[in-house]
This record gives sequence, C-alpha cells and structure tokens, in this order.
Amino acid sequence: MIDNPYYTHEFHGDYELISIGRLDLEEGGSIPDCQLAVATFGTLNEAKDNAILVTTWYSGTHQVWRENYIGTDHALNPDEYFIVVIDQIGSGLSTSPHNASGANAELTMSKFPRVRIGDDVVAQERLLREHFGIERLQLVVGGSMGAQQTYEWAVRFPDKVRRAAPIAGTAQNTPHDFLFAQVLCEAITSDPGFNGGEYASNADVVEGLKRHARIWAVMGFSTEFWKQEVWRALEFHTKEEFLEGFLEPYFTAMDPNDLLCMAWKWQHGDVARNAEGDLAAALGRITAPMFVMPINEDMFFPVRDCRAEQEMVKGSELRVIDDVLGHLALFAVAPTYMPQVDRHLGELLARPA
Amino acid sequence: MIDNPYYTHEFHGDYELISIGRLDLEEGGSIPDCQLAVATFGTLNEAKDNAILVTTWYSGTHQVWRENYIGTDHALNPDEYFIVVIDQIGSGLSTSPHNASGANAELTMSKFPRVRIGDDVVAQERLLREHFGIERLQLVVGGSMGAQQTYEWAVRFPDKVRRAAPIAGTAQNTPHDFLFAQVLCEAITSDPGFNGGEYASNADVVEGLKRHARIWAVMGFSTEFWKQEVWRALEFHTKEEFLEGFLEPYFTAMDPNDLLCMAWKWQHGDVARNAEGDLAAALGRITAPMFVMPINEDMFFPVRDCRAEQEMVKGSELRVIDDVLGHLALFAVAPTYMPQVDRHLGELLARPA
Repeated sequence: MIDNPYYTHEFHGDYELISIGRLDLEEGGSIPDCQLAVATFGTLNEAKDNAILVTTWYSGTHQVWRENYIGTDHALNPDEYFIVVIDQIGSGLSTSPHNASGANAELTMSKFPRVRIGDDVVAQERLLREHFGIERLQLVVGGSMGAQQTYEWAVRFPDKVRRAAPIAGTAQNTPHDFLFAQVLCEAITSDPGFNGGEYASNADVVEGLKRHARIWAVMGFSTEFWKQEVWRALEFHTKEEFLEGFLEPYFTAMDPNDLLCMAWKWQHGDVARNAEGDLAAALGRITAPMFVMPINEDMFFPVRDCRAEQEMVKGSELRVIDDVLGHLALFAVAPTYMPQVDRHLGELLARPA
Repeated sequence: MIDNPYYTHEFHGDYELISIGRLDLEEGGSIPDCQLAVATFGTLNEAKDNAILVTTWYSGTHQVWRENYIGTDHALNPDEYFIVVIDQIGSGLSTSPHNASGANAELTMSKFPRVRIGDDVVAQERLLREHFGIERLQLVVGGSMGAQQTYEWAVRFPDKVRRAAPIAGTAQNTPHDFLFAQVLCEAITSDPGFNGGEYASNADVVEGLKRHARIWAVMGFSTEFWKQEVWRALEFHTKEEFLEGFLEPYFTAMDPNDLLCMAWKWQHGDVARNAEGDLAAALGRITAPMFVMPINEDMFFPVRDCRAEQEMVKGSELRVIDDVLGHLALFAVAPTYMPQVDRHLGELLARPA
C-alpha cells in the first residue's frame, strides 16, 4: 500500500466505502474484503424502486458524474431518483492495487489479481441488494468502461435492469481497442521507475504517466478537436499548455498499478462470456429498453462498432452524441454535450419498462 | 556511423547514391556532402520531358514503390515515363544520422541536424536538374510524407510541376498529427538503450522500436482493419502473430535516429512557410492539375483534413481511396488498392498540362 493524496475526499468529495466482504474473481483468486466507494444522490423511496446505478470509466470516478451529470437540472435528477455511483474496482477509491491493506494486504501493488467487468457487476449487484435492499434498477448508465459494465448488467441481470444506456463504449471490446489499451499500459510499464509495479510513489513513474497522457491526447480527442483548438475554451493558449496543464496532471496524479488494473479489465470486457462466446446470444438476453449512445468523433469506440452491437439488442435505439471532443467528450466540457445526454436519458427514463 | 544491414542493396535492390554536394538547411547548418539514394525506372527521352518524381514516406523507401506501384501494368509505366524515386534525407539510404561519415562525420547519430521537407525538395530539384538535366516533371507523386514533399514541390516550383498527386498526406501538418508523431518519437527516446541517440546498434533500442511499432498498429491501420481481421489475408493466424511477424520486425530493423530525423521533418511540414504562414496563399500558387488522394479509413490524415486543403488548390480534385487498411493502405496490400491508384494517376496523367 502507498499513500496517494489524489484518492481522498479532498479530491473526490463525499463518498462512502462499503464492504461487500469476500469477492471471488472470474480469473481465480479473490479479494478478501472488497470495498466499493459509493456516492449517492437523492433518496431511496420506500418501495426501493427509484434507484439508478451509474458505473465509472477508466481513470474516472463518481466525481465527474457529481459535477456534470447529476442534478435537479439533469435527467439524473436526485429529486426523483436515488442515484448510486459505484467506483469500479481498481479506481483507486474502491479496493485497488495501491490501497490494498488490512485483509487485502497480500494483494498490494504488483500482487493485485486480475479483475473483470463481470466481477465489478457481481460486486455492485451484491452491494445494492445487501446494503440498500435494491432489487431492481430504473436505469443503469455509464460511459466507456462504464458502458462495458452497463452492458454486462443488462446481459447478466436482465430482470434487474429496467433501462440501460451505454455511452461511448462496447459490450465486447474490439481488437483495436485492445491494442490501444496495450499501448497505454506499455507507456507506464516501460518506465524504469515502474519497477515491475513495486515503486514507492506514483511520482517515480511520472515520465511513463506523462507518455500515457500524451497517447490519450492522440486517441482520446478527435483530430478536429486539435485542429479547431477547442482547448482554447478551457483557457489555455497553446496545445502544449493544455497538455501540461490539463492532461498530464490529470494522469500523473493517479496510481500506475490502479490504471493497469483498469486497463486489463477494459481490454478483456466481453459480455459474450455469459453465452459461451456468442455475442448475439448474450445481447439477445437484454430485455431492457436500451439507448446505445456513441460519440460521433470517438477515435476508438467509433459509431460503427457501437451500431453493430446495438443492432443485436432488440428494441434498442442508437442515439449518437455529436461532440468534437471525441471520446473525452465524456468530461462534459462542451456546452452542447449535456443537453444531448439529458435529452436521451430523459426520453429513456420516460419509456415504460 | 553504425552498420545496419537493413539499409543495403540486399533489402532495397538497385539504387544509386548521388551526391548533390553541400546542402544548406532551413533550420541552419548544412550537410557537407548530401547524398540521395535514387532508383530509376524507364528511360529519359531526348527532350527530357517524360520524367516522374516519386517521393518517399516515413520509414518507406523506393522499394515499396518498385514492388507495387511501378510497372508496365501500372499508371507509373516505365515504358512511357522515366520514373525517379528519391529516398528522403534520413531514410537510412540517403544521407542519414546512422550513415553520416566521411565529409558528414560531424553529423553522425545524435549530432545530425534538423531537416525540413523544403530541404528535401531543394535537394531533389538540384539532383534532377544537375544530374539528369530534368527541368520539368510530368508528375510528382508521393504518399504520407511523400505527399508533404509533393505539395512542397507544387508550391515551391510551380513551373516545374506539370501534375501533382499527394496521397494520404497534407500540405500543412495538423496539430493532431504532430502529437501522434511525438508519441512515436517518445516510444523510441524513452528506451534507456536509446542513450540520447548514442547507441551502438539499433538492437539496443529494440524495446522502444517495438513500442513504436505497436503505436503504428493503433493509428496506422483502421479500427475496422482489426475488427475484420484483415491481417489474415497476409497469412497470419492471430493479431499478435501479425504484430510480431510483420509490424515489429518492419520497424526494429530500422535505425532509431533515422526515424526521429524523419519524424521531426514530418511534424514540421508546412508549405505555408513559403508564403509567410499563409496556407491559402501558398496553395494558391499551385498551377499543376492536382488530384488530392486521401484514404477513407485513415486515422491521422483524415479525408476531412485533406479536403480542406484540396479546396484551396484551384482546379484540383478530391479522389478518395477506399481501403479498410487505413493509412497503411499505402503498403498496397489490398488487391483493390492499386487499381484505384492507377485509375486516378492514369486519369491525371491523361490531363493536358
């Protein structure tokens, strides 16, 4: 375990650490005391049927949802719904390589086991049921790796998911996406300071984390984002300033092993595992009304890939988000982004289910 | 200087090294004895007016043109034209960091000066004029960095270029492309074996070169290339085999400093330098009929960027090549690729000019 000030309430506001006990993992082994960081908004009604689950993306936590997606002026309205954001395993807030201690001490750092999207979803289902008494969700929604979890929920627990909205992500990771995530991992692991995962501080891996950030610059945004110098809207004067003042500090604050844990999970996301490798059969199990919401300028979850899956989900709709930021439109920086998300989620929540 | 068996006739067939003497460089300094590797096909006629110049791309040489683009069954027909392929400075065949010796000994390895696209074009023009007596070209054609040189030729020497065909490249490098090339450079320079450019052998930098290859895997091909497993057509059984059997050996054979020399040049390509930074003014100087030929699945020279420039060239046409390989369609692997290139170049060569 190492101390990293980024994964604290100072940076992530209110959240609660909830233990679900021992979590056996698909790849073998287990987490003896799996703790999930949970931020909630609104009030669970007596029938316990007004809950929405939000799942999180690579490097992202509940905080970006709190700041941008959730509020009385949004479809994710805490006056109406009990909104539960659960940070994924490896996020740095929930049980993760860098914070494994106590009962999890044997899993610390490079010894952390491989975790799959399905492990997260099983853990989340248990938490919602055992801790909150929630048996059914009005909506599961998440972006990127959160979309992977959303699909997994809808396939694995069709009776518990009344509606689902995977944003900018796929049910079965594509080979290109696998290779992209591999390049991200190698930027980190190739730093001599990484030391096979046994560094003393994330600062030891700062060069690898910066390279990792700059690869995100190439793939996370669109070619047009850079051409139009959209970063000027964030009050930077040059693209170098934007990299050094935004993307690099964003990632260098994080823990390398935590990022690698999430990256492996991202690479291996595949709902077809629930149907002996048959993607169409797995997606055919989905009964929830689903809006599949890719971002039109996304470089690595292109609309084409999302549409191919959406067409396998009966009764689903493709709702393309227009945003020049590309994948990282998920940061909700463009003023035109949240109105689109709210409109789609609002219409989905209005659907009988 | 170091010995690298890749940059030999064994791998690159017949070519001639032609010295153009001292080349003063735009960024300052000079190459005392600038030698260009030249492969020719066909016969220069008495009027010396049947010449075509082919310029080369990052990591590519005349060899890929010889094997795929040039022949009596192609638009680049040596029965009709005298086709001159000039390998760019830094290519490893022409004067380059790894082979700088003799009069160029002071430029060896990390001491090699920065070279610009304009330097190559000035060198090529001098070579064609002084060595072959060629004053005017029927066509200048090149892909990627070769497209950068093609644009530079058409802007800088409008009276010498009768027709021009930039394939999969831009006249002014985009910021996204700059960042992509930077990530490629960092994959190499971050390898401890790189040693600031003073390695004993490219084998010392093999890990960095492999990372560089795998970044090409993500950006050089399209998402759909990987999804459709197009690499199976090259008789590989898994994408890992394709990486390890094709892309990695392709790049690990090369010299790191040579690649970095080309990458810097690529990053800083900009014909607007000929018109005080005014891109429209620079492109407005082009008088040659021009076919701008982007590849529809290109991840980093997208059609959108190529079209924006094409629209600034009067009388030009946009001819989009359909190829799922993306940028690396340039390797001419798909059986449908060369017929498109030949059709466009054939039509262009048939235009009065």
